[in-house]
This record gives sequence, structure tokens and C-alpha cells, in this order.
Amino acid sequence: MLDRPIRRVPTLRDITVANVFFEPSTRTRISFELAEKRLSADTVNFSVSGSSVSKGETLKDTALNIEAMKVDMVVLRHRSPGAAVFLTRCIDAVIINAGDGAHEHPTQALLDMLTLTDIHPSIEGRNVSIIGDIAHSRVARSNIYGLRALGAHVTLCAPGTMTPVGIEEMGVRVTDRLDEALESCDVAMALRVQLERQEAVLFPGVREYHERFGITLEHMERYPDLRIMHPGPVNRGVELAGDVVDHERAVILDQVTNGVAVRMAVLYLLADRGAEPAS
Amino acid sequence: MLDRPIRRVPTLRDITVANVFFEPSTRTRISFELAEKRLSADTVNFSVSGSSVSKGETLKDTALNIEAMKVDMVVLRHRSPGAAVFLTRCIDAVIINAGDGAHEHPTQALLDMLTLTDIHPSIEGRNVSIIGDIAHSRVARSNIYGLRALGAHVTLCAPGTMTPVGIEEMGVRVTDRLDEALESCDVAMALRVQLERQEAVLFPGVREYHERFGITLEHMERYPDLRIMHPGPVNRGVELAGDVVDHERAVILDQVTNGVAVRMAVLYLLADRGAEPAS
Amino acid sequence: MLDRPIRRVPTLRDITVANVFFEPSTRTRISFELAEKRLSADTVNFSVSGSSVSKGETLKDTALNIEAMKVDMVVLRHRSPGAAVFLTRCIDAVIINAGDGAHEHPTQALLDMLTLTDIHPSIEGRNVSIIGDIAHSRVARSNIYGLRALGAHVTLCAPGTMTPVGIEEMGVRVTDRLDEALESCDVAMALRVQLERQEAVLFPGVREYHERFGITLEHMERYPDLRIMHPGPVNRGVELAGDVVDHERAVILDQVTNGVAVRMAVLYLLADRGAEPAS
Repeated sequence: MLDRPIRRVPTLRDITVANVFFEPSTRTRISFELAEKRLSADTVNFSVSGSSVSKGETLKDTALNIEAMKVDMVVLRHRSPGAAVFLTRCIDAVIINAGDGAHEHPTQALLDMLTLTDIHPSIEGRNVSIIGDIAHSRVARSNIYGLRALGAHVTLCAPGTMTPVGIEEMGVRVTDRLDEALESCDVAMALRVQLERQEAVLFPGVREYHERFGITLEHMERYPDLRIMHPGPVNRGVELAGDVVDHERAVILDQVTNGVAVRMAVLYLLADRGAEPAS
Repeated sequence: MLDRPIRRVPTLRDITVANVFFEPSTRTRISFELAEKRLSADTVNFSVSGSSVSKGETLKDTALNIEAMKVDMVVLRHRSPGAAVFLTRCIDAVIINAGDGAHEHPTQALLDMLTLTDIHPSIEGRNVSIIGDIAHSRVARSNIYGLRALGAHVTLCAPGTMTPVGIEEMGVRVTDRLDEALESCDVAMALRVQLERQEAVLFPGVREYHERFGITLEHMERYPDLRIMHPGPVNRGVELAGDVVDHERAVILDQVTNGVAVRMAVLYLLADRGAEPAS
Repeated sequence: MLDRPIRRVPTLRDITVANVFFEPSTRTRISFELAEKRLSADTVNFSVSGSSVSKGETLKDTALNIEAMKVDMVVLRHRSPGAAVFLTRCIDAVIINAGDGAHEHPTQALLDMLTLTDIHPSIEGRNVSIIGDIAHSRVARSNIYGLRALGAHVTLCAPGTMTPVGIEEMGVRVTDRLDEALESCDVAMALRVQLERQEAVLFPGVREYHERFGITLEHMERYPDLRIMHPGPVNRGVELAGDVVDHERAVILDQVTNGVAVRMAVLYLLADRGAEPAS
């Protein structure tokens, strides 16, 4: 629908959506906001800076207040794992989890699944590798659930410090050797290195990380069917070489486009079904 | 109207409203923004961070500029008492006072009056107590005007340091004993303690404040007809015990719902009457 | 059109515009946002605080992402000269330059030309002086191009430290004496002194600047046909005396009104012509 000349449909007319972001995330917020506007919803943005939160209000009270203003749906980004599920117990408005700490990011996984099916109509039996800081990544966790549900073989590749203990129980293979993860791999999902937070602690430095876990043009040539995904924003030269970001087998921008489409679908389905939660 | 399936009416189509907030207030801003959108107004948000104000522009020049862009109505939150009235002398656009320092917050008082009439159809002769930092509260001041105009008996209850000298001249009774304020009281309005500003100065500590001026479940049982109001955001355990916030006789969330309705009404009436100020 | 009762036209329905501001500029952003809304475009705001930019993403990657969300037009304010032109090479969306460092501010020049033609139907042969920090002003640079193209005689007046070397090659006269700039001048454009940045370096102090380059009521009386323009926000008492800002021959607020009109025209023309850049 995004490529049609008339992009706006009246599906969510008379529905009010609040984008409640307790962590900054321009990218995800704009993706949701565009999805909402293309469905003709009324939107208000609520971000943490300057809000009652800094005055000590609890998440529950904030949500009760938003609901009392007759908001129908809340898109919630929060730093605490479980925040979205918690809210579904407090209020009747539909809650959409736009990322809760290191826990889950369901619409990211859905857009990744959509992007995968654009490449390979059936995901069943495909080999997908997730490379990077698995331990702190809500993107990884949601994707593992999605990929396993659709029957993909999942390999995780990360330094030991970034691999959660016991993660194999989720039905995935684990390695700390990049080539092992890329060999006979259909799609590699590189995760963003949180340079601002973990550099000093979890690995020696950016250059060392790139040397061991960064995907380069050489890898693209060695594995001629390999496709590259990344949830963005990319650190060029860290998790992916610049040439790989711009490579014709990278589908990073398709992910962004699919993000708006998937969020439109999620909003549409949840508006239809009433108060059932999405997280 | 907020509970009807079709919430948006075309009343303010072709009217542009600027929400000009020189103090952060997500709650009041969103309440106004929802009211504007449900009346189909075009809205723009202007907040102090990153604005020309930090470049030293005067309030008057900011307002003249906003008006020159053919904005019809300005919703103004400002830290200086009298800012809204001052602006009505500078520009022709309708000015709505969304709180000016410790002076007035007229739409808060209107929504409180609406909430009161939901409880008791006639406010005349009812006993209403306002408890907390009267001296620094625009909510208290606007409510005193509203309650007196509608014939309620008003009791103020606060530590001496939070009671303005000579406030009795507004036709109110003053006490520093909470039980005296709650006895034969129909509705108690608790005010927010500005923990971030006054704790160290005006009272010894949060625990002491709660012990002397906080309303508890025990009070709710002792006074079985007492209703509780609060302009929010609540400090649970300070001005109200958590149980009181969630009590069936607390109407705090009704106040929030009524806030959107009252602001829709104010926008509608002022758009109709042209340039007459609301403050 | 701004004075008509019905201000909103459906011209840009189904067009999505992103206002991407890497520098704070409430005034320009609101002017564009109002222009977009009056043309019925869908708008999203993207400001640098809290965006991926602070996570190290390149301008190009930010733009590619915005485009991947099927945004049609990008209004870009950026601190780097050439940022808007650079983006036109990266993405297909229409880019509108809303100010790129000290380089250009084309819609400001267009609105200034419109304001000039309101005063003097033909600009050809008119004398226009630009007074202030020419060297660091994108407004000055864009206006020089516009004025020269329309056949005006341009005089620049600034302290030597604020005059770029070789600026005469743009076909302008240069002086550091204010009276020489104002004599037989039809319109004087005063530039904003960036108090927050340059005071200590480029001139001795605000008082000294006002004494040598500030336009006062005395000048207004000495030159009875002189009109005053200023891109705003004005430092009253620095580049212009307060009385001059409010003078009947100052057209500063007309500039603001024309700004919305000009930006509507730019959006309309560029939406029509597809991907041709405006910068």
C-alpha cells in the first residue's frame, strides 16, 4: 500500500494512539507515527523528557491518566523488561510493545520475518544467524522466538561475554566463530554494538570487535548467497563494513520500509480485536 | 462526546492552535492537544527547549511572531504570573491560560467544577477542603474563585509556611488541622507537594508531611461520604496514601477525563467569540 | 490565502513531509509545519535530540532510513554547509534546505524578496543594505543571490571581522560606516548578532556594537523612507533599538507571515515537479 499514490486510508479514523516513549528512539517512533497517520488515527506523542515521570509518577499512574483521556491504543517503549505486559494488567487500552529493555521488541521481529519472506517465501528450514550482543538485545530475543516458530535453524554468534548462559535451551546453536555462523547461512542478522554503553567492558575495542565479528566485503564474496539484515542504526565499520551496508545483498532499508507496513498491520489487527495486548 | 464511537467533530476545522509551553507539562499539553484534535483544529507545539526563547527573545516578540504566522489561538503555559493576560494585550489571537506561575490555572478549576457537579448536582452550600501547599498553587487559587462563585464553603488546610497571609479575605476558612478540614467535608482536594522544589524548606520531610496532612485509608473510613480529588500527578504516600488514590471514592481519573471535555468546551466557546481572553 | 476563512487546501494530501532539524529552530520549523498542514500534508518531526544521530549514524544513513519509510519530502536544517545538496545525491525524496550552516537559507531569501515586492513592486535598481555579521550569515548569502538576481544594488555593512574577504566579487558594495549604508537606502536588513557565540571574539561588546551598527529611532527620522527588515529573532537594543522593531516602517512581522506563504509555495511547486531539489 505504501507505494500506491493514495497512502492514507480511513481505517483508524476516530482511534487515538499515544506514542509513549520512555527511552529516546526517533526511528521506531517515526515508524509508528507514520503507520498511525496512514491509517488516519489521531496521534499524540509523550516522551519522557519534561513529563510527569521526572516528577516521580509511577508507570501505572501515567498509563491510567493516558487512558482516562480516552486514548485507545498505547505504543510503549520502556527501559524495563515486562513494562508492556505490566500495563496490559493496569488499563483496558490496547498496549503495543515498542521495546521493553533487553527483553522483547515484537514489531521488529515481525518486520524481520516479513523481510525474510520477501527473500525466501518459506522460512522453514532456512539457516539464519544472529551476530553480536545477544545478551543485551531485545531484537535478538524476539527474532529467536519468531524464527523458531517459523521453523528456521538459528545460529547465534557472539563473544562469550555477550552470550547469555543457557540460551541453547531456546533451540538455537551457539558459536563464537564468525565463519561458522556464516557458512551455509541464508541470512545474517547483525546486531548493533551499543558503543555508548558497553565498549570498555564486554570487548577490548571497536577494531577488535570488527576483526572478529564484523562482516566485510570478503565475507560477501566468500558466501555468494548470503543476505544481510540489521535493525539499525548501523555503526559502519563495526558490525558491518561500510561496503556491506550498501551491498546489493543487504536488505537493511527493506526492513525499514517493512517496518511501517508491519506496524500498520499490527495497529489494524489490534484495533479490530479490541483490548487484546500485542506484547 | 468522548465515549461516542465517533469522537472527532469538524467544529474547529480551519482553526490553528499553537500550544506554547514555557514549562514542561506533558499532562496538560496532551489534554489540550487531544481536545484540539477532537475538534479538528490544526495544532503545532512550541516548547521552550530549543526555541528562540533561549536566544533571548521576549515573550511579546515570540507571541507576535506566532500571531504573524496566522495562528488563531494560543494555549500558554508560563512560569510568570500574569503572562497570559499580558499576551492578550500584545496580540489579537485568543489566549488560553494553561497555568501562569503560582497565579491561576483556569481550565483546571473548570474541570474540577465539572467533576464536582458529577458528584453533587448543586455545589451551593457544599463543603470543599483544599489541602496542601496553598501558597504556591495556581490550582488552589483558581479553585477558590470557582468554588466561591458557585456558593461552596471552602476550607484551606496547610502548614503555616504554605498558607498565604490574608487568604481569609477570599472568603475561606483556614486551619492547620487535617481532621478539622475533613470533618463534615463533602470533597477534599489534595494538592501536589512539589518534592523537587520545597521539601527542605517548607516542611521537615515527606514522612512528617504525610503524617500531618496526608489522607489515609483511616480517614476514608472515618468519613464515609468523603470524596477525594487531586490535580495530579500524585505523590503516592505523600499527599495521599496509595490506597486512597485507588479508592472508589477518589475521582482523580474522572478529573482527567473531564479535563479533555472542558478544554474542548473552552476551545469551542472562545473560537466562537473571537478574541476574548480566557484567563 | 492565509487570510481566507478556509485555510486548508487538499493540495498535498497523500504527501508525507519529514521536518529533519539537526539544529534547534522552533521558528523555522513551525513556519514549515504550518505550511505543510495548510496544504494537508502528513508531517513528522525529527529533531536531533534523542535521535540515532547521537548514536553515531551518518547523515546519509539517516536520510536513507527516512526515505525507506516512504517519506516524499524532507525539510532539512543542518549545521554543515552543503548538507542539503549532499542529501539530494543520496536519496530521491525532495530535499528543501531550511538552512545549512553559514552557507544558505533559500526560503528566508524568498520570503524576504516577497516582502520587498510588497513594499516596492519592482526591486530592480532599489538600494538594499545588509547590516551585521555577513561572514557567518546564511541569510545574508542567500539574500545577496536573490537581490542581485532581481537587480537590486546591495551594500554590506559590518565590522571588518564580520566581512568575508573578497565578498565584493558577488557584486556588492562594502562599508563599515552605518550612515553610508543607510543613506539613499530603500530597505535595510539587519542581521541577528549571535550573542551566544561571537560576542567576545568579533566585537568588543553589545553596547559598542549597538553604537556603531545598531539602527535607532534617530536613523528612522533621518531617513524618512527607510524600511527595516530582520530575519528574527531580534535582540532588542543590539542590532535594532526596541522602538525600531515596533516602528511602522519595520516589516519584520510581514516577513514572518510571508514565510508561511513562501514555504507553502515551495512545497507546492516541488511536490509538483517531483524529485528536483530546492537548495
